[in-house]
This record gives sequence, C-alpha cells and structure tokens, in this order.
Amino acid sequence: MSAAFKTVALIGRYKSRDVAEPLRLLGRFLRDNGRAVVVESDTAQEAGVDDFPVDDHAGIGARADLAVVLGGDGSMLSTARALAASGVPLVGINQGRLGFMTDIALGAMTDTMASILAGHYTLEPRTMLATEVSRGGDRLVATIALNDTVVGKGASGRLIELIVQIDGQFLYDLRSDGLIIATPTGSTAYALSSGGPIIQPTVPAFALVPISPHTLSNRPIAVADSCTVEVTLKQGSDAQLQCDGQPQIDLVERDRVTVRRAPHTLKLIHPSGYGYYAMLREKLHWSENPL
Amino acid sequence: MSAAFKTVALIGRYKSRDVAEPLRLLGRFLRDNGRAVVVESDTAQEAGVDDFPVDDHAGIGARADLAVVLGGDGSMLSTARALAASGVPLVGINQGRLGFMTDIALGAMTDTMASILAGHYTLEPRTMLATEVSRGGDRLVATIALNDTVVGKGASGRLIELIVQIDGQFLYDLRSDGLIIATPTGSTAYALSSGGPIIQPTVPAFALVPISPHTLSNRPIAVADSCTVEVTLKQGSDAQLQCDGQPQIDLVERDRVTVRRAPHTLKLIHPSGYGYYAMLREKLHWSENPL
Amino acid sequence: MSAAFKTVALIGRYKSRDVAEPLRLLGRFLRDNGRAVVVESDTAQEAGVDDFPVDDHAGIGARADLAVVLGGDGSMLSTARALAASGVPLVGINQGRLGFMTDIALGAMTDTMASILAGHYTLEPRTMLATEVSRGGDRLVATIALNDTVVGKGASGRLIELIVQIDGQFLYDLRSDGLIIATPTGSTAYALSSGGPIIQPTVPAFALVPISPHTLSNRPIAVADSCTVEVTLKQGSDAQLQCDGQPQIDLVERDRVTVRRAPHTLKLIHPSGYGYYAMLREKLHWSENPL
Amino acid sequence: MSAAFKTVALIGRYKSRDVAEPLRLLGRFLRDNGRAVVVESDTAQEAGVDDFPVDDHAGIGARADLAVVLGGDGSMLSTARALAASGVPLVGINQGRLGFMTDIALGAMTDTMASILAGHYTLEPRTMLATEVSRGGDRLVATIALNDTVVGKGASGRLIELIVQIDGQFLYDLRSDGLIIATPTGSTAYALSSGGPIIQPTVPAFALVPISPHTLSNRPIAVADSCTVEVTLKQGSDAQLQCDGQPQIDLVERDRVTVRRAPHTLKLIHPSGYGYYAMLREKLHWSENPL
Repeated sequence: MSAAFKTVALIGRYKSRDVAEPLRLLGRFLRDNGRAVVVESDTAQEAGVDDFPVDDHAGIGARADLAVVLGGDGSMLSTARALAASGVPLVGINQGRLGFMTDIALGAMTDTMASILAGHYTLEPRTMLATEVSRGGDRLVATIALNDTVVGKGASGRLIELIVQIDGQFLYDLRSDGLIIATPTGSTAYALSSGGPIIQPTVPAFALVPISPHTLSNRPIAVADSCTVEVTLKQGSDAQLQCDGQPQIDLVERDRVTVRRAPHTLKLIHPSGYGYYAMLREKLHWSENPL
Repeated sequence: MSAAFKTVALIGRYKSRDVAEPLRLLGRFLRDNGRAVVVESDTAQEAGVDDFPVDDHAGIGARADLAVVLGGDGSMLSTARALAASGVPLVGINQGRLGFMTDIALGAMTDTMASILAGHYTLEPRTMLATEVSRGGDRLVATIALNDTVVGKGASGRLIELIVQIDGQFLYDLRSDGLIIATPTGSTAYALSSGGPIIQPTVPAFALVPISPHTLSNRPIAVADSCTVEVTLKQGSDAQLQCDGQPQIDLVERDRVTVRRAPHTLKLIHPSGYGYYAMLREKLHWSENPL
Repeated sequence: MSAAFKTVALIGRYKSRDVAEPLRLLGRFLRDNGRAVVVESDTAQEAGVDDFPVDDHAGIGARADLAVVLGGDGSMLSTARALAASGVPLVGINQGRLGFMTDIALGAMTDTMASILAGHYTLEPRTMLATEVSRGGDRLVATIALNDTVVGKGASGRLIELIVQIDGQFLYDLRSDGLIIATPTGSTAYALSSGGPIIQPTVPAFALVPISPHTLSNRPIAVADSCTVEVTLKQGSDAQLQCDGQPQIDLVERDRVTVRRAPHTLKLIHPSGYGYYAMLREKLHWSENPL
Repeated sequence: MSAAFKTVALIGRYKSRDVAEPLRLLGRFLRDNGRAVVVESDTAQEAGVDDFPVDDHAGIGARADLAVVLGGDGSMLSTARALAASGVPLVGINQGRLGFMTDIALGAMTDTMASILAGHYTLEPRTMLATEVSRGGDRLVATIALNDTVVGKGASGRLIELIVQIDGQFLYDLRSDGLIIATPTGSTAYALSSGGPIIQPTVPAFALVPISPHTLSNRPIAVADSCTVEVTLKQGSDAQLQCDGQPQIDLVERDRVTVRRAPHTLKLIHPSGYGYYAMLREKLHWSENPL
C-alpha cells in the first residue's frame, strides 16, 4: 500500500448519531493501515466518538490529505464549501441510497477505501461558484457554492423582476419565481427540476435556469464559466439569496448579486470503476424504462 | 337599443388615477343610452370622479346588471372574486395591451359597448375555485379564486413536501417548490409558466401543476373539476397559500388545503367577434413565428 | 359465483408463442367455473392451442361477454380497436411488467379472474377517437384509436406545416415534427413523451400536443372531447398518419385529417383494488424519488 | 478604407430570383470601393446576373477573402458547409426578418458593408460537426454540419431504439423519435424546439437532445465538444440521418453514426454593434412579455 493520503479526516452527516458505528470502523481501519486519522469536531461530539483526535474544518484543511464524508450529497455540499480553499480532496460514503457525489456504499466501505489508499481512484475537479451581494456601495455577502446560487422568491411570495447581465452585457429582464445559476455539479439538482440541461462536469459552463418564467421563451442558457453573471433586483421586488439551498440574505430592490467561478476547485475522489454516465443512469432511472 | 343591462357598474384599476378620463366618458355614454350608472366607491375616490352615484362591491352585486372593468387581467381577477356570488357579468376594457380576459381596447370602448348594449355579445361561464384551510379542527381560511390556488414556498425558502389526495385517494407525495391548482382560466397564467397545459374554458377540469418537482415524472395532471383536491403539508415543511397571486396565510406542517369548484361561476361578456383561439394566438405570439 | 360473463374470449399477444401455457391454464379455469371459452383464431393458431373453440374478432364481438387480453398495452390497444363497436369489455393480464391498462399480473391470474367473475371489479369507460382523412372530395381512411391520432413526419423527414381548426375555428398554423391528438388514455403514452399533460380518464377532453414545435409558446392544449379537430397539411408538406402508433396512410398537401370522439367507448374491467393514481405512481416511479 | 477583404464573393439564396437587384447593387458598391467581386455560379445563373465574374464554391474558397450571403439562416447553413474547409469568413444580409446568423438588414446593406470593409466588425468562430456513418466495415457518409446532426425517425415512422456512447463509454439506451446532436449555433434551432438549452457560442460543448423520449428523465445533456459521440441503431429500428436538416442516408439496424467536432471552424463576421444576447432577445421575443 502506497503512502498516499497520510492524514485522513472523517466527517459525518450533520447532527447524526447513526454515523458513530461506521465512523469508528473506518477510523480503525485507516489507523491499522498506517494513516493518521482526525475526526471533525462536531461530528465527534454529535456521534459520541472519542477514539481519535479531533479538529475543526480549518484544522482539517491545514493538515488532512483526504477527507471522507459519511453522509449524503447534502453533507458533501457543506463539506465542499468548508474545505474549498484548502484543496483537500473529498470522497463520499453513503449510508442510504447512493448520491450523485457520494458513490461508495456503506457495505463496501473498507474494501473500497483500501483500494483508494492503494492508489486505485480517479480525481475529478469540480467547478464552484463565488457569489457576492452588493447593496449601495457595500458588499454584504461573499460565499461559495458547489451546486448553485439561486435568487428566489422573497418573503412576500411575489413574482420577482430581475435584470441579468453577462460580462456587463444585458441578457434580459426576467419576470419569474427566480433564477438558478448552476455549476455542472448543480445541473443535476435544483436546476434539473426547473427544466435545465444536464451538464457534464468537464464542460466549462454554468447553466442559467429561470424558475417558472413569465415569458415562455426564456429557456435555460449555458454560458462560459469564465463569465461574470450579475443579477439586479428591480424596483418593487424582494427576493432571497440561496447558495446550495442555504438561505444567505433577504434581497431588496437594487441589490446586485454577482456570480463567478470560484478561485478554488473541489477535488472529488472516485473509486476506480466509477463512471459519470453510469451514475446518471442509476440516479435518473435511465435503465428502467419508466414508461 | 334593447333594455339589456339596465344598471351598469364601472370599476377601475386598483389605485389608478389614469382611469378618470375613460371612466367619465364611458359613464356619460351609458347614461346617454338610458342606463343607470354606478361607480365602485374606491374607484370613484381614487380617480376623483364624482359625476355618478357610487357603491361598494356588495351594493354593485345587488343592483348592477353588468360590471365594466377598466384595467387589466389583475383588475378582472379581483373584481371576479368580489362579485362572484352575485352573478353580475363582467366585461373588461384594457388601457394597455389586451389581456387574456380584458378584450376591449380603450379606443374602441364606446363603439363596442354600444354593440354589447344592443345585444351583440357572447356570455362565457368560467369556473372558479373555492379554497379552505383547516388546521387541527379549525377552518382558518375560506376564499375564492378565478385563476389558481397555489401552495408555494414559505418564508424559509425551502423545498416543500406535500401529500396530495383527489377525492380521498392518495395521488402522490410531492417534493417541490409548490403545487398550482388552476382553472381553465388560470391555465394560461402561472400554471403555463410552470409547464402546465392550456385548458380550453369549456373543459370541466383543473390542472395540478407541480413547480420544479424533485421527481422529473411528476408532470402536470388534469383532473375533473368535480374532484376535491386536498393538499397536506408534511412534517418539517412551511408554505404560503396564494389565491390568484394574493397571499392568504402562512401554512405550517399538517395544515390541510382543500380545493373544490366554487358554487358560483363567473360570467364573462365578450364583444361579438371575440374568439378564444384568436386571443391565444395574439397573447402567445403564435402568429409570429418567434424562431 | 354469479352468472356474469357467461362467454369469455381469450386473446393473446400478437404472434406470441409464450402465451400458450397461461392461455390453456386460464381457459381451463374459466371452463371449470362454468364459462364458455372462445379463443381468438390467430392467437390459437400462433400459440398452437386447440383445446377450445376459436373465432375471429367479429365473432368474439358478437358472442363474448368479456375479452381477456394476455399481453401488454399494445395488445390492449389493438384489441380495443378490433372490439370497439361490439361493446365487449376488456381486461388485461400482463406477462411482464404491468402496463397502464394491463393490470393483472400473470401470477395472480386465476385468483383475480375468480374475483372478477364473482362480481368484484370496476368497469371504467374510456373514450376513443374516430379519424378520417379526406383528399379532394374523397374519404380515404376512417379508423378508430384508443390512445392517439398523430400527424407526423413523412418520408421526406422534413418539418411539417399544418393548419389546425377546432369546430371550424382556426387554432393555429403549426410548424413542427407533428401533432398528437390524444385521449385521456393516450395522455400517458406518446403525448406524455412530447410534453403533454396527464389527463384523468373521467375528464372529457383531448390533448393536442405539438411535437418539437418551431414556436416555443405552442404548448399542449386540452380541448373538450365534443370538439371536431381538423388538421390540414399545408402546401409543400408531406406527412404520415398514425393511429395508436400504426401507420395508416401517407398524407400529401391539402389532405385533411378529421378527429372526433368515436361513437363507441371502450369498457375496461379492473379488479377491485385497482386505483388509477396507484397505477400512475407505479408506472411513473413517483414513489421512488428518482433524484 | 483599409485593404481588408480584397476579394469578396456574393452568394444568393438557393434558387431565388429576388436576389438579383440587391446583388447587383452590392456588387457595384464593392467594386466602387476597390474590391474584386465574384458571384457564385448558381446564384448568377438563377438570378440572371452577369455583371461580375462567377465561380463555384471551390473557386470561391480558394480566392475570396470574404463571402457575403444574401438570404436567411438556411442560406448561411449551406454556404457554411460548402466553404467550411476554406476558412473564408461569412457575413449575412437578410431580405426578410433578421435571422440568428444573418444580421444585416437589406436596407442597411451598403452602409453596414462600408463599415465592415473599414474594419469595424467582430469575427466570431463557430464550431461545426463532422459526422460519419459506418455500416459493417464500410464508411458510407462523411459530412459536415453547422447546426446539428439528427438521427430521426425513418420511413416506417416508428419509435427508434439507439445506443449512445460518449468517448466509448455507454451513456444510455434511448427509445425516442430520435436524437439531436447540436452545436452552440444549432442550440437555438431544432434542438431548442425539442427542449434543449441555449448554448452560448463560446461554450465548447454539444447538446444531446432526445426527441420525445420514452423515459421522461432522458433530459438534454451538454457534453464537451472534444467528445466523440457514437449512436448505434438497435436491432429492429430504422432511421434517417439528417445534417442541418438535409437528409443524408436511411439508416438500418447496427449502423453507427459517429459525431465529432469538425477540424474546421466557421468564421462569422458581425457588424460592430452586434451582440449575441441582443439577437436572442429579438429572435425569441424576450423583450415583449408574451404573457
């Protein structure tokens, strides 16, 4: 077994106790295989696991060579945001049904990790989004997302009117329930439910997907991921900004949301044998002829 | 000229002053043609028109034989709700671009009204929705809508989980941004933006249109308008109830929204020459080959 | 056991030999339960079953009280067309995965039939379509369909231009790959793949669903099933007419296709416990959360 | 005026006589401005214009520095295919409504051409597709397209079953009316009508858009334009191959269609002031609020 991934961090699903058993099992397995193991602090506390050193996300970012997430796609999203700047690669183990990103089944956990430690894996970079909000001259929010940034309906529940610009050029005046700006990773999440295309992760593009647009020809658009997308709330509109489904701020008229490719890229580790299309077939029931 | 429509009510766009001039012009024209004219109280006050007797919606419902709405589709919707129980037929005059329901152009106002008073018109019934909310054993809301009832995202901005039943039979567990229940009239409004079908007004059906559903095969369904649709908010969800785009109440888990055909039907008056399909072609740009 | 369904016809999947075994089993079961059994001639020959009297569809229509189809939805479609005028009710037994209309699993065949013979069933009427083609003054085709009538691309493979009228009123000029006119039964077949709504079988409507329309706002429309839909091929277009997926005729410019509700209605027999929505959930994977 | 575009070719709409007048006008204008003018042979003959030297596409490809197309997007498509390998840039003048690619109005023809000759233009590269068909060991077709390659329904008019591979990896088994493989240029044509996304021309991707897919989750996918897409017809299917809407060959079972980025790129010339998003707004009626 090679010396890859000397220090491995273990991160469990948010506020889950069920993770204790597999976490201990995996931690021991890694230690037995000569790796230093560190458990994310909240995970350790929630799960009541005190067999390993603990550290917070910042510490994990500084010292780990690999982070293993025990959870679902939601856990991957939050860990990706927390570790984005550190460059620590992530791998996901799923206790339930496999996710779009968490592709190791709990039952195959140690065998698959052994294989990954032995160097049998692929490393797939995934683009992330950097989102800022400016109000007047102030920058109110600056955050990172792996799936999507959404300017959606605000507390009033009314239709939103947005002005959208791409690299300073006017795209359109959008009257809708909102606008999703999705990475290829996010193209199989909320954007897909709203009629957006699936974007293969190697395509350097974002999808702009209007939610229930008033104008029927306001169809999803894929723009180069080198673009800067600016979304300005028109007079009379209120909205809510969400990144990866997490509310960030209530937006008021004239607020401007700026979305760019983040400087950092998530590194996803897949076990050998992983295939993006096979995952899509499985997740989207393509092999089953739903009709 | 026949004696039809002896008493005509005039109702202007909400809080609009621009309506004063056409309102006076139309009122005099009607009076000169032997009709009693009554102006809706708020309209008279907002527009500063004091040339005619005024009355509120209840009074108009009791005494008018016809109500003329000067405004757009939004004004028609609110007037329809206010006069639904009275059976007073409505006709719409549009100051701007013609609407789906307001089909007389301002410039043709007096000529067209003369023709309608002479009996040249068609009367089209439009189904309405009665919506109730029950929480525990209490009935919290009971309201009427012409276009649609929507259980949409609440203040949290999160995905909603709903249980939907038709006549007591389980339809589905829906994870989405919401569910639109639309009349044929409403099928060309919000429901259309969310992927629903156009439903000809004579079809006795409602459209159930999920908004950005998690499950891609959760497609719009048309159900008989004799059905009772029940929507129950699952544990952990919050939502907002809207009728014709007007917020009604914030819904909490276990709240049940019941939607049925309303006992009353809106009577729409169209000038002779009106055609539903011609209106669709005009409004949806079908004649223009957008590509 | 009641005296219902004295004569039962058995009809197998087209040109299938696999049907012999269950056909014999079912035939004997019915005979043992006091029913006269007749096997459809082609079925008997293809399957090599000579244990029962045989008859053609016309004969079955004249003497049977119930027809049992051993096959899939395709077999139901062709049997429905063949027996439409006779009024003989149909029930479907599926050797593979259950269909939208064939809702008895092979393994439960005799138990379920016993229950149906004992009177435990529901009878659901399903609207059918009558389609005619006129060229110049001649009527070229007159046929029946249970799912849909489609004016689709012809041999040239080119975009088709159609003029569509509803009850003599102009609907639109349609540039597309074709137009599907679907019954509620057909709304879950080809029409659904082309973006049409699901229509509950009790809704008296047809769906008009354009296939890849040039104009993006040419959305599916539900019209009353009392309407006459006329589709005329514009100059320069060629097309193919299909009913229930069966090619009928190559259409040339100026050909007119007229579609109406058929005078006869299919009677579908469902075992007790059948539910339309449960069937949709099963067939469309609604219970599985595909994402 | 600079010495750019010394030799300018003029190419008219296929088999159109209306092009004679503007063609002569433009030819003289160019000659007066010191350019050598050559008219495409068929154009000259059809339009009856004999004032200029003529040449075929091959000759134009060898000697011209710019080709001006007088026609619509269809004329641009065929000229693009004919001149693809030569690298001669194209500019389009539209006699009717402006197209997605033909962005100079007839009335502004000479002014705009003067500006372009003076160097006020942008040059936009557009990816093209190279498509091959192999049957058994033979290569039957090898052709170029600017918009799209389509494997669509064959003469039988039946559903097609396809196996699709991306770079040798299995994507899916597709049951549908066909599959569109579109460039960003083609993303606003047939692919858009079939539910595909708009792809900005700088995004290095192709859209794979199923036409009326049997499986509702078979949604459009954007794949990197460095990919090789292979489409194999399954047993029992027949199909037709079209490139830019032009029928190429009838496909039989086991035929394999291979689609790649073409080695050559179309160079589109736009007058200064052109904007891709402004063009989309105009063509797709985004500014008009269709509802």
